[in-house]
Amino acid sequence: MLKPDKLSLNIPDTTKPRVVIIGGGFGGINLARKISEKHFQVVMLDRQNYHGFWPLLYQVATAGLEPDSIAEPLRKMFGSDDYADFHFRLVKVTGINPLNKTVETIVGELPFDFLVVATGTKINYFGNEQIKKYGFPLKQIPQALNLRSQLLQCFEQASMTVDPETQQSLLNFVIVGGGPTGVETAGALAEMKKHILPTDYPGVDFSKMNIFLIEGMDRVLPPMSQEASEKTLKYLQEMDIIVRLNTLVEGYDGETVILKGGEQIKTNTLIWAAGVSGAVIEGLPEECVERGRYLVNEFNQVKGYDSIFAIGDVAMMKSPEYPKGHPGVAQPAIQQGKLLAKNLKRIVEKQPLEPFKYFDKGSLAIIGRNRAVADLPNNMHLGGFFAWVIWLFVHIMYLIGFRNKLVVLSNWIYKFFTYENSTRLIIRPFVRRGDRVSQNFINKYGGD
Amino acid sequence: MLKPDKLSLNIPDTTKPRVVIIGGGFGGINLARKISEKHFQVVMLDRQNYHGFWPLLYQVATAGLEPDSIAEPLRKMFGSDDYADFHFRLVKVTGINPLNKTVETIVGELPFDFLVVATGTKINYFGNEQIKKYGFPLKQIPQALNLRSQLLQCFEQASMTVDPETQQSLLNFVIVGGGPTGVETAGALAEMKKHILPTDYPGVDFSKMNIFLIEGMDRVLPPMSQEASEKTLKYLQEMDIIVRLNTLVEGYDGETVILKGGEQIKTNTLIWAAGVSGAVIEGLPEECVERGRYLVNEFNQVKGYDSIFAIGDVAMMKSPEYPKGHPGVAQPAIQQGKLLAKNLKRIVEKQPLEPFKYFDKGSLAIIGRNRAVADLPNNMHLGGFFAWVIWLFVHIMYLIGFRNKLVVLSNWIYKFFTYENSTRLIIRPFVRRGDRVSQNFINKYGGD
Repeated sequence: MLKPDKLSLNIPDTTKPRVVIIGGGFGGINLARKISEKHFQVVMLDRQNYHGFWPLLYQVATAGLEPDSIAEPLRKMFGSDDYADFHFRLVKVTGINPLNKTVETIVGELPFDFLVVATGTKINYFGNEQIKKYGFPLKQIPQALNLRSQLLQCFEQASMTVDPETQQSLLNFVIVGGGPTGVETAGALAEMKKHILPTDYPGVDFSKMNIFLIEGMDRVLPPMSQEASEKTLKYLQEMDIIVRLNTLVEGYDGETVILKGGEQIKTNTLIWAAGVSGAVIEGLPEECVERGRYLVNEFNQVKGYDSIFAIGDVAMMKSPEYPKGHPGVAQPAIQQGKLLAKNLKRIVEKQPLEPFKYFDKGSLAIIGRNRAVADLPNNMHLGGFFAWVIWLFVHIMYLIGFRNKLVVLSNWIYKFFTYENSTRLIIRPFVRRGDRVSQNFINKYGGD
Repeated sequence: MLKPDKLSLNIPDTTKPRVVIIGGGFGGINLARKISEKHFQVVMLDRQNYHGFWPLLYQVATAGLEPDSIAEPLRKMFGSDDYADFHFRLVKVTGINPLNKTVETIVGELPFDFLVVATGTKINYFGNEQIKKYGFPLKQIPQALNLRSQLLQCFEQASMTVDPETQQSLLNFVIVGGGPTGVETAGALAEMKKHILPTDYPGVDFSKMNIFLIEGMDRVLPPMSQEASEKTLKYLQEMDIIVRLNTLVEGYDGETVILKGGEQIKTNTLIWAAGVSGAVIEGLPEECVERGRYLVNEFNQVKGYDSIFAIGDVAMMKSPEYPKGHPGVAQPAIQQGKLLAKNLKRIVEKQPLEPFKYFDKGSLAIIGRNRAVADLPNNMHLGGFFAWVIWLFVHIMYLIGFRNKLVVLSNWIYKFFTYENSTRLIIRPFVRRGDRVSQNFINKYGGD
């Protein structure tokens, strides 16, 4: 058995200033790619050994893509000789010590000259322990695989019951959160319901399958334009998705969802896509943090520090244009990562830093085949087929790695012409904490 | 929470004779494809919702392929109208009642007119509880994903330790069993060691990585020809794999492998590929079973029964040519499944049955790039590049499903030209029973 004292971060000593990057997300990798290894030693710490293209995670959950299509191993990304002084460690960071300028991990401390926190967000259950226990989150690959198995197991069970109430709760799917993840998951489920499930489960009457989308605010896709929200709502309703706006979820005991106002929905599957908060780390004083994100200046320096930076979702850079900080999407993280690479060089070269200016390339969401919405620069709003084509194009272009693009593209072409989801495998080898249905199912009814 | 009494097999009544097939492996699917639904209702029961192409499972474990490349959902395979009276249930079979002619499952009984047991094999630990607890089996997709994560986590940890002993046991990989699975896994690991790991883990000295292949008999690939065994041994040694023949494993406590004769190997990873036994089901009298397989006649009828059949690995059909039954490979299962489909029709049409005659198409094993062995009909034995090309061709041809072929082929072409494994993702979301290292690792050092 390995004892912690047998492990250490084991980073080679260096005469160059050391930049420690916590997190291999959009911010972290774009910083690490552009940073000058002539000037710096770069250390990246992450709890996962891959960079995930999270905008497509819902397709892993809805059996459209396999994990390797949306994830790229970090060591593969930074394995070439261009990154000779790049060091990755798969490790959990436990704290920051700003006085000693060290990062604390479970296998020991690491001194830094510059620290960049690029940890992104973590799921926010708003303190609801019940939902944390019984809800299905959708933020990491194992969670997506677990949700996929759950969905398929519900259909399998629905084909094995004649009890109407049991079947109905197996066929009710409640998605909490009307943001991109919630909307896109609901849309993908609706497509499965229409094109795949009736063939796969001839014994089940899928007119009974209900997809609920619960949103607390007065419109879906709140971060997008009013036009986009309205189009999206129309698309969702065309696809028979039951949308509840201005509705909060009060509780879920694994069987019944209780909505504020008293409505109850029986379901075995509550998908929690309702909120995230910045993944801040112990150690920096409270005044650096506002609503779960680090307050940073226009150079991404954390309030009160000149060598500690935060980029992407975990950073809150207030500006007249974005009084509450930038939207929690990939672009600000990417752009801040790239700029910080330049600014770090400027710091060691004693040059003035360049302030961050967010270039909004627009945002996209897909609801189904030929149904997508796009907010483009200059207040251009698109919907329908054109937005859908743009969505496909943009997502393939942004996917990391030649091979993934190829596989994803071939999957999508295949799906488009055959209406087939490719990867309907129940491979859940484990039981989700508190997931009694699945435990029951796996123990008693097989599965792996 | 679902109670068993809420679930039932829920198979529609029928006037046609009902054929119940237990298992969706090579035997089961080839029977189900050819069986005449004009004459029969077909019910397939399996604990997995997919058919797996197990000869390539080791590539999932060694990060070469994703699960969907080697597995096809059974409901997708039998979803077309050609299979209008085919019914799949994801359920665990608990017993056979030959007197009442019923199959017993956890969700109730199912009467059959004809029963076909096509359950294949299960792992045989030869009663060694220690190895069952600490060894990594390689028989199912979740096990392959778990092993993949373990391998990668060992390399990550090896980069994080300066303690020589700790690092050595992280870099020792002991594969028990010199059959196809063991040989092919060892070969794939050796290729990773040579082409990928040094780039991914520049901090680790991979000359210290040892791959042990332990075989109890006097040659590797015992089922194949002497020529093939000798070539394979040569290839393995060329690839720096440490082969121990005539060697039995006595114990493994999660840290140290003890070989018969006293040699000890420190390792965090023991891969158990040493044996399988037929997955027989409770309920048939003992005299039907010999060495874990059902004794069947030349029509695959289980000894003493005319409407209960066994095909593939779980069947033992003795013949002058094969006094111990047929080899445990795909071909006998495929050929027996196809023939049984015909014979069932003959039974209801009161025609004489056709006896099974095994057509040996030969066998193949791959050790590495340009290194494979082939035993072909007419005592032809090939090795090297030609055998390797045959291996690629045969495996792509046999892979189920258009899409899989495409993806697998593109993966292999990509790998061939880039030496890259594609899917080096640690996605293990769970902890293997008794796997203290990984538990430690996941809890303390991150991961999902």
